[in-house]
Amino acid sequence: MINGERITKSTVRWGMVGGGKGSQIGYVHRSAALRDRYFDLVAGAFDLNAERGRDFGAELGLDPARCYADYRAMFTSESAREDGIRAVSIATPNNTHYEISRAALEAGIHVICEKPLTFTTAEAEELQALAEARGLIIGVTYGYSGHQMIEEAARLVASGALGEIRLVNLQFAHGFHNEPVELANPAAKWRVDPRFAGPSYVLGDLATHPLYISEVICPDLKIRRLLCARQSFVASRAPLEDNAITLMEYEGGAFGTLWTSAVNAGSMHGQKIRIVGSKASVEWWDEHPNQLRFEVQGEPARILDRGMGYLHPSSLIDDRIGAGHPEGLFESWANLYYRFALAIEAHDAGKPEQIKDLRYPGAKAGVEGVRWVENCVRSADLGGVWVDYQ
Amino acid sequence: MINGERITKSTVRWGMVGGGKGSQIGYVHRSAALRDRYFDLVAGAFDLNAERGRDFGAELGLDPARCYADYRAMFTSESAREDGIRAVSIATPNNTHYEISRAALEAGIHVICEKPLTFTTAEAEELQALAEARGLIIGVTYGYSGHQMIEEAARLVASGALGEIRLVNLQFAHGFHNEPVELANPAAKWRVDPRFAGPSYVLGDLATHPLYISEVICPDLKIRRLLCARQSFVASRAPLEDNAITLMEYEGGAFGTLWTSAVNAGSMHGQKIRIVGSKASVEWWDEHPNQLRFEVQGEPARILDRGMGYLHPSSLIDDRIGAGHPEGLFESWANLYYRFALAIEAHDAGKPEQIKDLRYPGAKAGVEGVRWVENCVRSADLGGVWVDYQ
Amino acid sequence: MINGERITKSTVRWGMVGGGKGSQIGYVHRSAALRDRYFDLVAGAFDLNAERGRDFGAELGLDPARCYADYRAMFTSESAREDGIRAVSIATPNNTHYEISRAALEAGIHVICEKPLTFTTAEAEELQALAEARGLIIGVTYGYSGHQMIEEAARLVASGALGEIRLVNLQFAHGFHNEPVELANPAAKWRVDPRFAGPSYVLGDLATHPLYISEVICPDLKIRRLLCARQSFVASRAPLEDNAITLMEYEGGAFGTLWTSAVNAGSMHGQKIRIVGSKASVEWWDEHPNQLRFEVQGEPARILDRGMGYLHPSSLIDDRIGAGHPEGLFESWANLYYRFALAIEAHDAGKPEQIKDLRYPGAKAGVEGVRWVENCVRSADLGGVWVDYQ
Amino acid sequence: MINGERITKSTVRWGMVGGGKGSQIGYVHRSAALRDRYFDLVAGAFDLNAERGRDFGAELGLDPARCYADYRAMFTSESAREDGIRAVSIATPNNTHYEISRAALEAGIHVICEKPLTFTTAEAEELQALAEARGLIIGVTYGYSGHQMIEEAARLVASGALGEIRLVNLQFAHGFHNEPVELANPAAKWRVDPRFAGPSYVLGDLATHPLYISEVICPDLKIRRLLCARQSFVASRAPLEDNAITLMEYEGGAFGTLWTSAVNAGSMHGQKIRIVGSKASVEWWDEHPNQLRFEVQGEPARILDRGMGYLHPSSLIDDRIGAGHPEGLFESWANLYYRFALAIEAHDAGKPEQIKDLRYPGAKAGVEGVRWVENCVRSADLGGVWVDYQ
Repeated sequence: MINGERITKSTVRWGMVGGGKGSQIGYVHRSAALRDRYFDLVAGAFDLNAERGRDFGAELGLDPARCYADYRAMFTSESAREDGIRAVSIATPNNTHYEISRAALEAGIHVICEKPLTFTTAEAEELQALAEARGLIIGVTYGYSGHQMIEEAARLVASGALGEIRLVNLQFAHGFHNEPVELANPAAKWRVDPRFAGPSYVLGDLATHPLYISEVICPDLKIRRLLCARQSFVASRAPLEDNAITLMEYEGGAFGTLWTSAVNAGSMHGQKIRIVGSKASVEWWDEHPNQLRFEVQGEPARILDRGMGYLHPSSLIDDRIGAGHPEGLFESWANLYYRFALAIEAHDAGKPEQIKDLRYPGAKAGVEGVRWVENCVRSADLGGVWVDYQ
Repeated sequence: MINGERITKSTVRWGMVGGGKGSQIGYVHRSAALRDRYFDLVAGAFDLNAERGRDFGAELGLDPARCYADYRAMFTSESAREDGIRAVSIATPNNTHYEISRAALEAGIHVICEKPLTFTTAEAEELQALAEARGLIIGVTYGYSGHQMIEEAARLVASGALGEIRLVNLQFAHGFHNEPVELANPAAKWRVDPRFAGPSYVLGDLATHPLYISEVICPDLKIRRLLCARQSFVASRAPLEDNAITLMEYEGGAFGTLWTSAVNAGSMHGQKIRIVGSKASVEWWDEHPNQLRFEVQGEPARILDRGMGYLHPSSLIDDRIGAGHPEGLFESWANLYYRFALAIEAHDAGKPEQIKDLRYPGAKAGVEGVRWVENCVRSADLGGVWVDYQ
Repeated sequence: MINGERITKSTVRWGMVGGGKGSQIGYVHRSAALRDRYFDLVAGAFDLNAERGRDFGAELGLDPARCYADYRAMFTSESAREDGIRAVSIATPNNTHYEISRAALEAGIHVICEKPLTFTTAEAEELQALAEARGLIIGVTYGYSGHQMIEEAARLVASGALGEIRLVNLQFAHGFHNEPVELANPAAKWRVDPRFAGPSYVLGDLATHPLYISEVICPDLKIRRLLCARQSFVASRAPLEDNAITLMEYEGGAFGTLWTSAVNAGSMHGQKIRIVGSKASVEWWDEHPNQLRFEVQGEPARILDRGMGYLHPSSLIDDRIGAGHPEGLFESWANLYYRFALAIEAHDAGKPEQIKDLRYPGAKAGVEGVRWVENCVRSADLGGVWVDYQ
Repeated sequence: MINGERITKSTVRWGMVGGGKGSQIGYVHRSAALRDRYFDLVAGAFDLNAERGRDFGAELGLDPARCYADYRAMFTSESAREDGIRAVSIATPNNTHYEISRAALEAGIHVICEKPLTFTTAEAEELQALAEARGLIIGVTYGYSGHQMIEEAARLVASGALGEIRLVNLQFAHGFHNEPVELANPAAKWRVDPRFAGPSYVLGDLATHPLYISEVICPDLKIRRLLCARQSFVASRAPLEDNAITLMEYEGGAFGTLWTSAVNAGSMHGQKIRIVGSKASVEWWDEHPNQLRFEVQGEPARILDRGMGYLHPSSLIDDRIGAGHPEGLFESWANLYYRFALAIEAHDAGKPEQIKDLRYPGAKAGVEGVRWVENCVRSADLGGVWVDYQ
């Protein structure tokens, strides 16, 4: 990866649903997928407005014939072509993820989907089963999970450097929606409407990010029960929450907390991960992602910097630039996408076992994110009580 | 205060119970009380070992006749002298606070006591009533609450600069006891023994500090119900906890969390206060106490520095040195002590109304700290459920 | 730019000299140029070894016929084609920049060159004149100068918010070469060999970066005289320096310092810019490039964050992702490249006046960087004395 | 020292010249000297206005008979008493330091003096010789040099952990005088008047602080030649400077820079020390004095915290409170004063060799500070040229 050295041999023919003109996340997907030519964008159903979608595709240099009015048309046509897309990214409102993903899988197309994968665990598990049956992958874009310092944190935990894990402190708490900004900004509106967003706002939209990162760093932790309290400080958002705190008891005695908020006034993103073990802790913050704080009790705190030779080799292989120069969001996303490409390549070759050690947010991550939100909502709706994790 | 300008005219004759040779907190009390001659140390019952106590008093320059074998003897003798002590500081294990405080008040002596004031709310309220009846003060040493930047945070909240308070995020989570250090360190042993420490370890010992600071900053918030989960990661500490998380619902809809820990491996003290309002937040950290972060949503974060002219006048009057030079723990404690002196002076003059605007942790703070721990323990012992705040 | 909105209509046909297999900087150039399809890589003379260069071009998807054995062949062939390259990037050792740039300009091809543009000011001015005569641009890749927070700093200075500029404090001082790492790393070797690197090591390689940024932020400052002291702490590097300090007196009384080092052991890149005015200062650090510190005397320090609405509009237009998500080195470089594309488009349209307000490191920046190093070396070689700036 | 454990047996009878009502630095001296009863304030010539001085002494609880109209009267009377002062602290404008110090020494009284000790090196050396002849000490209050983390930095250098010292980067650059505040503030006025301040403003007033700290950390470095450029950005301060940069060549090849300023707009104190060795660096900042950054090339940066067991034992013995709680300016000053007390005790016992390893800013530090300023001024007045260090 360093110096742009490519890891896959082929380039995945790729399409998008949603992510059209004016979509921020659409741009992030394309930036990540096209970064080092792991993917080649050849088709799209970018917009509910077919003409606008076609114009946008043209801007991107696509064959107009492969700019479709809707995803069904795209999947039908593309799966009939010999040079049809092998993978599709879905960047549409939450309520459509399930049906679009299912349609893609049924058409034999790999799926890369925005979180949440579905509204219910049952739906997510159905997609997972479908993908497995068809030999396809599902990727879920937990963007920062691709960062090298998350890999380093995972390696430190795996090495035993932290001792036994005791505490998992998670946070994704920004302040950008401390007022009802959605009233003036239609693009933000669907996020607080349960018909489009599903049963939660910040739990699904923000909290699942650090949750997944914690699963990457501490793969052995299993939630036994949890408790969630959620609030709608901007009243018009009810029943969806704009702030929530979740407590988690893990099998074996570890304890977790996750604070998520869109009303943490004055804060930037505030995505922070702190894992506390019996001997040491690691802490990571998405606003300064190139540093990882490693604190051994009784020793000076250490600031680990991305790209340095003292890191685990697997924390170095995704570097695009040497230490000292910051990498940001886009590199982290691009890391996810090249792993998706690797996974697709292995599946298409009929050799999924080749990538069994490849870490990427797949179908299981999709299912588990939905399951966690479902449990949180159940707890919150019962008045913030402990519920066994189902 | 700047340049050592004194605020009271008289000097309070003062004694100590506990805090003898080898006591760290005893030294902190003396450093604070004697700092600018607000108090004059003239008597003490420093040690369970009378001879060692007397020797220690001699080291401090005390009249040996006023170095007592126990607190009862001290209170009896001193209250009989015309030049007897007017105030006593109690720096003994928790289980003795109630009886010593009561004895002092009954002897007509003002009380300055380490937290927790007592084991039960009922006892604390009894002391409060006793103090009121006798025209005496009770001071509780929540050391950092005397810091000027806490005053500034309170002023910002009072000014409406934060809007309506929504979230109270509190933390006091260090890592120094990640292993059972008490086994080798007798001085730490009583803190994890319920007979001496009372019904909690970190909830009472650590958590009540940021809790009181939050009460100073947000005096209008009243807890409606709370939920506490506590753990003993070092198993030998059970039933006392070395880690706990408390959720608080306040009247009016604000929500609070308080994380306290002695097993946050690798962390220094980690006492952090973040108050989030509908418009802005303030954040303070005891390890860098001279800075207060003030974050207005949609504006650049501001770093407020102690001693600067843009602060509220009441955040400047306790400065001992100009801006740029850091003040630390000792100055904060000394601020508390001079306020205790002011309160004592006013009560002794029969004019307690003179100091009705003086902010210091008094009897009410003592009661409320005990009450909070009691509610936390009740919730935790019921399995971490919501309990109405009693 | 936000959401990938393109600013130019056409895509510039583009080639590279150097930057082949294993070249880090080559990858950075391509990442930046291809980021949003402002450039299209169609030709290259990537390697001194023609076969290896062709293989590398093939990896990148180039037509083998346009993978050339050397730059002369490329310029000749490409300038003869109707669809020949319009621009070339030069990522070769310093000693070749002048001749390759001249050849490109003579062939009518726009030049984007690594710094230093040449070894001598005379050569650089010759290239500048040649480019002007042919209606071509020269771009010099001072990578971080494209960052939005540098634009914001420039806007703050231009607005008068800092008052009169008094001090310019510049630093680029890393520690990666505290030992003679070049002995084991041939790729680093040429940088300390005057035949390939020119008359300086860190002055030319590092110092010109913050120097150019200071020129962007304070365009009105003109150096009147300077003094430079340089050292070779790793003796084998002499006569080239691995550490240097330069003092600068500007016309009008402002004063500047620039510390550059490759032996600042333990430091990461340490590129820092602090501009002090009579009323306020700004400070920027390349390791956390999304924040700009703005300090008005007598007011709380402000932390400005990239992407926030309170920034100058021109500091927002280059954003690729909203506030809170960090952008890093690659985005900053990509900003430079799209500006090069804009400049090329305007020149090719015969309308260079269209972009007279476009800020990018052009021929003048190239000349001035070489001139500054030349003056520094002259001062240093005279024993670290003041020399009038020539 | 921890827990207030005293190190000397006796208490030094002590007087002050200057430092009267409204003096900030006077309060700092008293706070430090009286902190743990190492000194006992029994006499003073606090004020040019004798009556005001006497009133102030009364406020401090002094015998009015020992509140003198001037220092001569004090030295005469006190040296005639059996219980007369053994030491005096001098907190008066710079122009009086020499004559008062000499008078004290001649009266057989130990001297603790604000820097600069004198205006000229010759005078300082005269005082040094006088003190030696009389068996008296001279202490100079470089306040932060008493901080434990400075000791730790010195220990790290002495241990060889940094390798050979290459670079000394010093800074004391605040912004509080970016405007001519002295026009409105008489207390600040003398500092910019050469008759009272001597030949420099910020060089003597600020720069000598980090200079002395660098001597403590790197005792083996000897300046061979230096170059100083100074400016008066507030024109009315000329010929005294409010900003200066000094370059220093040390014997053996190390190189130093010292930036000092009172016009670094928006900055707090900004006293920073960075020592760069061939293997590692240490960095300290007076605004967060409890942390020391230790950076070994190729390893994660380490944050060392005051009070932690991994520090050198000699970096722990001055702790007054355990790790995690910040100590500030007052503790650092108090550390100096107790060392002065130790030195006085040893000299009065006729055993100065007892304290030959005691580190405190003594006569030599006073001489060297004056010498350095003298050399800086000489260089600056010659136009900022290199001058051999004399």
